[in-house]
Amino acid sequence: MITKMLDEEMWLAISGTALKVVLLTIGAYILIRVVRIIIRKSFSVRFKGPIKVTGRRHQTLSKLLENVVTYVIWFMAMVTILSLFSINISGIIAGAGVVGLAVGFGAQNLVRDVITGFFIIFEDQFSVGDYVRINQAEGTVQEIGLRTTKVQAWTGEIFIFPNGNVTDVVNFSLHNSIAVVDLSISHDSDLAKVERLIMEFLETVQPNYEEVISPAELLGVQNMTATEVVMRLTAETLPMQHFGVARRMRRDLKEFFDARGVELPYPRMVVMHREPGENMADAAVVKK
Amino acid sequence: MITKMLDEEMWLAISGTALKVVLLTIGAYILIRVVRIIIRKSFSVRFKGPIKVTGRRHQTLSKLLENVVTYVIWFMAMVTILSLFSINISGIIAGAGVVGLAVGFGAQNLVRDVITGFFIIFEDQFSVGDYVRINQAEGTVQEIGLRTTKVQAWTGEIFIFPNGNVTDVVNFSLHNSIAVVDLSISHDSDLAKVERLIMEFLETVQPNYEEVISPAELLGVQNMTATEVVMRLTAETLPMQHFGVARRMRRDLKEFFDARGVELPYPRMVVMHREPGENMADAAVVKK
Amino acid sequence: MITKMLDEEMWLAISGTALKVVLLTIGAYILIRVVRIIIRKSFSVRFKGPIKVTGRRHQTLSKLLENVVTYVIWFMAMVTILSLFSINISGIIAGAGVVGLAVGFGAQNLVRDVITGFFIIFEDQFSVGDYVRINQAEGTVQEIGLRTTKVQAWTGEIFIFPNGNVTDVVNFSLHNSIAVVDLSISHDSDLAKVERLIMEFLETVQPNYEEVISPAELLGVQNMTATEVVMRLTAETLPMQHFGVARRMRRDLKEFFDARGVELPYPRMVVMHREPGENMADAAVVKK
Amino acid sequence: MITKMLDEEMWLAISGTALKVVLLTIGAYILIRVVRIIIRKSFSVRFKGPIKVTGRRHQTLSKLLENVVTYVIWFMAMVTILSLFSINISGIIAGAGVVGLAVGFGAQNLVRDVITGFFIIFEDQFSVGDYVRINQAEGTVQEIGLRTTKVQAWTGEIFIFPNGNVTDVVNFSLHNSIAVVDLSISHDSDLAKVERLIMEFLETVQPNYEEVISPAELLGVQNMTATEVVMRLTAETLPMQHFGVARRMRRDLKEFFDARGVELPYPRMVVMHREPGENMADAAVVKK
Amino acid sequence: MITKMLDEEMWLAISGTALKVVLLTIGAYILIRVVRIIIRKSFSVRFKGPIKVTGRRHQTLSKLLENVVTYVIWFMAMVTILSLFSINISGIIAGAGVVGLAVGFGAQNLVRDVITGFFIIFEDQFSVGDYVRINQAEGTVQEIGLRTTKVQAWTGEIFIFPNGNVTDVVNFSLHNSIAVVDLSISHDSDLAKVERLIMEFLETVQPNYEEVISPAELLGVQNMTATEVVMRLTAETLPMQHFGVARRMRRDLKEFFDARGVELPYPRMVVMHREPGENMADAAVVKK
Amino acid sequence: MITKMLDEEMWLAISGTALKVVLLTIGAYILIRVVRIIIRKSFSVRFKGPIKVTGRRHQTLSKLLENVVTYVIWFMAMVTILSLFSINISGIIAGAGVVGLAVGFGAQNLVRDVITGFFIIFEDQFSVGDYVRINQAEGTVQEIGLRTTKVQAWTGEIFIFPNGNVTDVVNFSLHNSIAVVDLSISHDSDLAKVERLIMEFLETVQPNYEEVISPAELLGVQNMTATEVVMRLTAETLPMQHFGVARRMRRDLKEFFDARGVELPYPRMVVMHREPGENMADAAVVKK
Amino acid sequence: MITKMLDEEMWLAISGTALKVVLLTIGAYILIRVVRIIIRKSFSVRFKGPIKVTGRRHQTLSKLLENVVTYVIWFMAMVTILSLFSINISGIIAGAGVVGLAVGFGAQNLVRDVITGFFIIFEDQFSVGDYVRINQAEGTVQEIGLRTTKVQAWTGEIFIFPNGNVTDVVNFSLHNSIAVVDLSISHDSDLAKVERLIMEFLETVQPNYEEVISPAELLGVQNMTATEVVMRLTAETLPMQHFGVARRMRRDLKEFFDARGVELPYPRMVVMHREPGENMADAAVVKK
Repeated sequence: MITKMLDEEMWLAISGTALKVVLLTIGAYILIRVVRIIIRKSFSVRFKGPIKVTGRRHQTLSKLLENVVTYVIWFMAMVTILSLFSINISGIIAGAGVVGLAVGFGAQNLVRDVITGFFIIFEDQFSVGDYVRINQAEGTVQEIGLRTTKVQAWTGEIFIFPNGNVTDVVNFSLHNSIAVVDLSISHDSDLAKVERLIMEFLETVQPNYEEVISPAELLGVQNMTATEVVMRLTAETLPMQHFGVARRMRRDLKEFFDARGVELPYPRMVVMHREPGENMADAAVVKK
Repeated sequence: MITKMLDEEMWLAISGTALKVVLLTIGAYILIRVVRIIIRKSFSVRFKGPIKVTGRRHQTLSKLLENVVTYVIWFMAMVTILSLFSINISGIIAGAGVVGLAVGFGAQNLVRDVITGFFIIFEDQFSVGDYVRINQAEGTVQEIGLRTTKVQAWTGEIFIFPNGNVTDVVNFSLHNSIAVVDLSISHDSDLAKVERLIMEFLETVQPNYEEVISPAELLGVQNMTATEVVMRLTAETLPMQHFGVARRMRRDLKEFFDARGVELPYPRMVVMHREPGENMADAAVVKK
Repeated sequence: MITKMLDEEMWLAISGTALKVVLLTIGAYILIRVVRIIIRKSFSVRFKGPIKVTGRRHQTLSKLLENVVTYVIWFMAMVTILSLFSINISGIIAGAGVVGLAVGFGAQNLVRDVITGFFIIFEDQFSVGDYVRINQAEGTVQEIGLRTTKVQAWTGEIFIFPNGNVTDVVNFSLHNSIAVVDLSISHDSDLAKVERLIMEFLETVQPNYEEVISPAELLGVQNMTATEVVMRLTAETLPMQHFGVARRMRRDLKEFFDARGVELPYPRMVVMHREPGENMADAAVVKK
Repeated sequence: MITKMLDEEMWLAISGTALKVVLLTIGAYILIRVVRIIIRKSFSVRFKGPIKVTGRRHQTLSKLLENVVTYVIWFMAMVTILSLFSINISGIIAGAGVVGLAVGFGAQNLVRDVITGFFIIFEDQFSVGDYVRINQAEGTVQEIGLRTTKVQAWTGEIFIFPNGNVTDVVNFSLHNSIAVVDLSISHDSDLAKVERLIMEFLETVQPNYEEVISPAELLGVQNMTATEVVMRLTAETLPMQHFGVARRMRRDLKEFFDARGVELPYPRMVVMHREPGENMADAAVVKK
Repeated sequence: MITKMLDEEMWLAISGTALKVVLLTIGAYILIRVVRIIIRKSFSVRFKGPIKVTGRRHQTLSKLLENVVTYVIWFMAMVTILSLFSINISGIIAGAGVVGLAVGFGAQNLVRDVITGFFIIFEDQFSVGDYVRINQAEGTVQEIGLRTTKVQAWTGEIFIFPNGNVTDVVNFSLHNSIAVVDLSISHDSDLAKVERLIMEFLETVQPNYEEVISPAELLGVQNMTATEVVMRLTAETLPMQHFGVARRMRRDLKEFFDARGVELPYPRMVVMHREPGENMADAAVVKK
Repeated sequence: MITKMLDEEMWLAISGTALKVVLLTIGAYILIRVVRIIIRKSFSVRFKGPIKVTGRRHQTLSKLLENVVTYVIWFMAMVTILSLFSINISGIIAGAGVVGLAVGFGAQNLVRDVITGFFIIFEDQFSVGDYVRINQAEGTVQEIGLRTTKVQAWTGEIFIFPNGNVTDVVNFSLHNSIAVVDLSISHDSDLAKVERLIMEFLETVQPNYEEVISPAELLGVQNMTATEVVMRLTAETLPMQHFGVARRMRRDLKEFFDARGVELPYPRMVVMHREPGENMADAAVVKK
Repeated sequence: MITKMLDEEMWLAISGTALKVVLLTIGAYILIRVVRIIIRKSFSVRFKGPIKVTGRRHQTLSKLLENVVTYVIWFMAMVTILSLFSINISGIIAGAGVVGLAVGFGAQNLVRDVITGFFIIFEDQFSVGDYVRINQAEGTVQEIGLRTTKVQAWTGEIFIFPNGNVTDVVNFSLHNSIAVVDLSISHDSDLAKVERLIMEFLETVQPNYEEVISPAELLGVQNMTATEVVMRLTAETLPMQHFGVARRMRRDLKEFFDARGVELPYPRMVVMHREPGENMADAAVVKK
């Protein structure tokens, strides 16, 4: 009777196990289908916004993701089914674990890139067309991708860097820029007269430069070295127009001063001559 | 009878399992509801203070968080329910673990950013409008966000950096600043006379400059090089007014000295001439 | 009877175990076969594209991978079989775990290299023949490999670096380049006349240089130092032609100016002479 | 009868479980109460010493800690209660583990800051009012906090940095300082006479400077370059008085030397003239 | 009877356990033998290729590896046997785990070195005799070892570095090199004439230099500074012959120019003299 | 009867559990007592040697350690007791694990500091009073502590750094030092005569300087630049006496040479004059 | 009867447990004895070779290791015994795990140092007496220890660094060195004559210098700047004799040239004078 009971139990167990195997297989299959559809939808919907993903890459990435997910789900299902037959799966798990560890570590940069990329767009740190400086790259943002960003320098080269490397962003396109012109004048100059001339010149700036949006200013004496007095002039311009405005101001200022006969200083040096004969006689610098 | 007992037991087990499944599902649902409400409340209440979160982002972030939490809770519930059917879930856990590991590592920067951001506000290290220097960024704080901080340089560009990068903060707006002016005078000058003149000048500083809040001082001879003696002058000013005050002091000092006929030194050099003919004859430097 | 039952159970268990051992061995064998075929196929199919893998390496890598996979699968099978005999395999797993840990850590660079390499090709950051700058390496891309990239400098040396080191790519071959020529002129020069001459010269650039694809421009006064005024000229060229164009423009400009008698400035200095006798007498710089 | 036994057992199990739930809930509640009281006491007692915690922050931090502890204890209690109902909690633990991992990694900086902060105070590395240099920050310590330290530079700006960044401390306030004055004299000078004069001057230092606490010394010839001989003078002063003392010594030394007619050297150069005509003729440097 | 059954069961268990112990011991012994033979074979066969392992080291390393493997296998066997006696081995495992962790972390550099070393040889990045630059080391590769590489500088010193440090390799021996000679000429020179002379000289290069494998070229005006015009000449040479060729070209060019009376420029400066008397009078730079 | 048996079993279990609780509590209590005594003994005995621990800190650290140990042991005991009541303690362990992880990571620097500190003393790398350079700190070792080392610079400031930062130690007090004096002489000098004079001078060094312990040497011509020939003189001195000896040697050498009428060189320059009129005429550098 | 059976079983269990405790205690004791003997033997035998371990340290280290091993084995034994009484030891393990984690991380540098140290000796990278450069340390290797290496600079100071910091070794003692002498000659010189003279000089080198082991060579014109032509001379010397040989060659070369009346060049400059009056008139650089 007990044998019968065992039989009955065994059959119960066997049929239960068979049922579980079937259910797990179906469940895994359905899960894969669902995940695939989600992936496809996400790709066709979500990244329509500021991220530019070309068609070809779109497809490649979508398929890659589908493959990875399919493999992972089937692996889980197989492991679970094996464990139904009371087979200790520690070995399999451990083997997969070492691979998983290496991949997990190796892939952390990838995850970091995507997370940072998400925040760049979410926080609107910069957008396509902005003039930015990010690490060594300085130029116009050309493309903000899932994993990398492209910036074009003014001399034509393209900087491509992973988003995870974007830590300190300098964005020049969000606010008006300030054009800064430093003017060296000689110590011999009459400071008051020079200032008067500069003020006269500055009044001509805003009317003549359309990119300048407020009256140009004379900040004052920025520096006073042994050879020159440095005057600093500033002008608020539209974003990123300060390079051009500063160039033009330098040119106009030079012409303005030339026309009025103001000389800009060359380096100067006072030279005291001593004859070779004087050399040692003179050595007793300590006079008396 | 034993079969009957087994039946009874089985039915007990089945009904117990069914109950647990229902309870778990309901519990998970309620938990999600509660967590969602907490998230929404937190967002509408807590960050009213110094952090500026615009409406749109507010909503996005709140929804993102809700989604993540919903997915995580359902995942846990599903795993727990599966385990009720005596299905070994090691496989699922292991699979989720590798993903979790990669995400955990990738997200640690995010956590670090938010924790540091919390402490910046909590410790009031700086607030919007302060003039600060943080790494390469120097300028006025424009916005302290959940994850990033924005600083505007005086020339208009915006620095954007994650809070986790904020290690050494230099805040210029908490205390009065000191304007420092270094004045080079010639070695030939009569030091006592020059000092007398400087003292005379310094007495005119506080009355004429409204940003200077205590009498300007002559620190003394800061340096003595082969070509010049450097005198250092200081004036305590309102926070961040020291750039302007130093510029004006340099200008006024120059005018003051010019008016009194004091010459500032050009680099000097003593030149000893030797004729080409002398060249080799003279080679016996060791005389006698 | 119970002994009999135990016997029966035991035989059941023994036969079950034997069955499992056989099944596991066969399963492992089949798995290895399948994986090997997949590896071979992948190697002969997938990397036909932009990655250049020579025949010999192809074979070596393929065999290496097959060996590693074979060892790993047999190890898992053995561990699983041992566990069927109720032998605690924690010791084996732990031993393998330490080795796995060291290998996992040591191999993470390898994984990172391959992942980054995949993205370089997938995102088309650069391709063979492009002129790029990656860290210290600057030159023409010669080969993009599974793990490393080779770049040939213009002076002939080859830079070889793992793909994981490729973070910031500067690609010069994607867009037109800008040739930049800086021209120093003397402060004494008549700026307007010089500008007129430069404009005259620039008109001759596009017609005479086939690599220049738009009229050359005079950007303006880039800098104004104590000794010179720096004028900047630019010309848009085909990608990577800017070095040659700039060289030729400098040459032609020099000839153009020489022909018209314009002098380029040598460094200038104003020298004031003082006699040694004057030295101390003159010390009272503060006159009167 | 067996059914009855099962019933009895079941009721025993149910009542036992119920008891455990009640006990766990009460235990958790009591534990929270106790921990809260400990936190409050710690905050009001322990940090009275050298750490300055303002009232408001005190309260905020104390509440924050209480909240965190409360959440953690309730989470543990819930998990333990769930496990009483034979619900496998691996899923919950795993979920919490990923979050915990990210938080644990993200929070390690925080822990490091507090540990280092504890040691700064415990080892008395510096205290409020000391003049220190820590990384780029140089100035007077203003506040040593739980997590950060504040240092005020002499020009007014405040440096704020986490204690974990404090590795190399330079403390200027623990010992007397040495004022160092380097004096350049001409190669033509009579060294013995100059030394005699310097010794004469140094004797006047300690009597006239109250910050100098031992006779000033002439260290000797520190350097001998092509243009000058550098003599080094030192004077031991009270802590941090060396800047002021060195400035005053430079000034007094200059006056002392001026009064005795000793000239300090300008850079010198020997110039050999060659006529343009000599140029090529002379080319045969190899004479004969 | 039950006692008897227990006895029987016990004896079964005991005999089974004894059997397992014997089997495990024998298995471990055989495994060690096998692994040892594999190690010896690998050492005598595999590294015959490009890696140079001297006899003595060969033996040492082989023995070291044998010892480590022997210890590890016996440790695993012991742990497994202990677990057969139902002794909880967590303690042992944990103890070994901490040691394993430290060793695993400490050894990861070793693993990294060997993996990178394998790839250097497998990818043929450089081989013995190549002239390479790797980090600070520049010279001829002397030996590529299991863990380290040796490079001999041209001045005789040997650089020894672990392969894991080899990230960016610069290999000079794979392609022809380019000898680069920069020639400074005076602004006063007649550019066309100089170019004609250089072209004349370049035609003599390939016929006279056997290492030069294509006609030498005049690249053009590389730079134009305030004092000189820099002309760049290049010649393609056999690998690593560019240093010698450039040296000889410089010498021959100098002789060629000297023979034709072309002068190379000394630095030039325009000096404007002002008398000390002029000094202040002239101060009104703003004329009129 | 079965109920009775269950009762009996239950009472056995209950009494066993009670016994275990009591035993565990007592064991924990005794363990704490023992550990405390060990801590106290260690503190009063072991660190008497080279480490300087002041009384106050001694006590603080000893108490801190006692507290930590007490808390840890009670925590373990509680967890073990809870587990006796079949309460799943995974939750508690997991909670403690996250805290432990953060603390473990945060504390690793501490452990590293103490381990390195131990080796500094054990290997006698330096001891109190030695003159060392460790990273930026250069000066006399003042204190070697458990966690940090203090070094006093010669100008009075104290460097305090954790022992874990001590990687490269430069110890100046273990061996005799070498005083190095570089002497520039003019190219015009008669090298043989100068050498003879230097040799003559060097013979006077050892007899007159008590810190010099072997005859001073003339190393030879260290460098030969366009303006000077540099002769290097060395003298072996007692440890750390080389600064003083070099200073005195420079002084005596100067006096020695002055007495014998040897001139030390000023920078020299050959100047070729060209008149402004010559400028363009001369432009045809290519003569003929 | 069942009670009796239980009794019997219980006694069996109790006696079995007691047996296990005794066996474990004895096993641990024996293990400790064995390990101690192994440690002592290793210390007295193995490190006799190239590593220098003084007697005192020998003993200290050996005792330290013995203590650590003793503690670890007793801890494992205790944990195993506790687990025999069905006491859940997770708490203890977890507690020990956190400590182990911190120690494991903290100790990884130690492990790394020893592993690298082993390879330095095993690969014979350098040995005592070699002249090496390792990071900032340059000098003669004085001692290669278990954990650190000591290098003595030629000026007497000792560099002490952990072996783990030894990555890039530069060993100067393995091969002959090359003495390099750069000789600047004037552009005015007759290159062929100078070369003839140098060749004449070089022939005198090998016969007169015993450290020179092959004829000295004239490499050629290394550089050609605006002021000088640089000729490079080399001579192969015994290892590390190149400093002395180069010094002597410079001296002899100078004497050789002086004797033959060859002048070495001073920096030259062409000066064009312009009178202040010319200043503005001349401004029209654009002539005609």
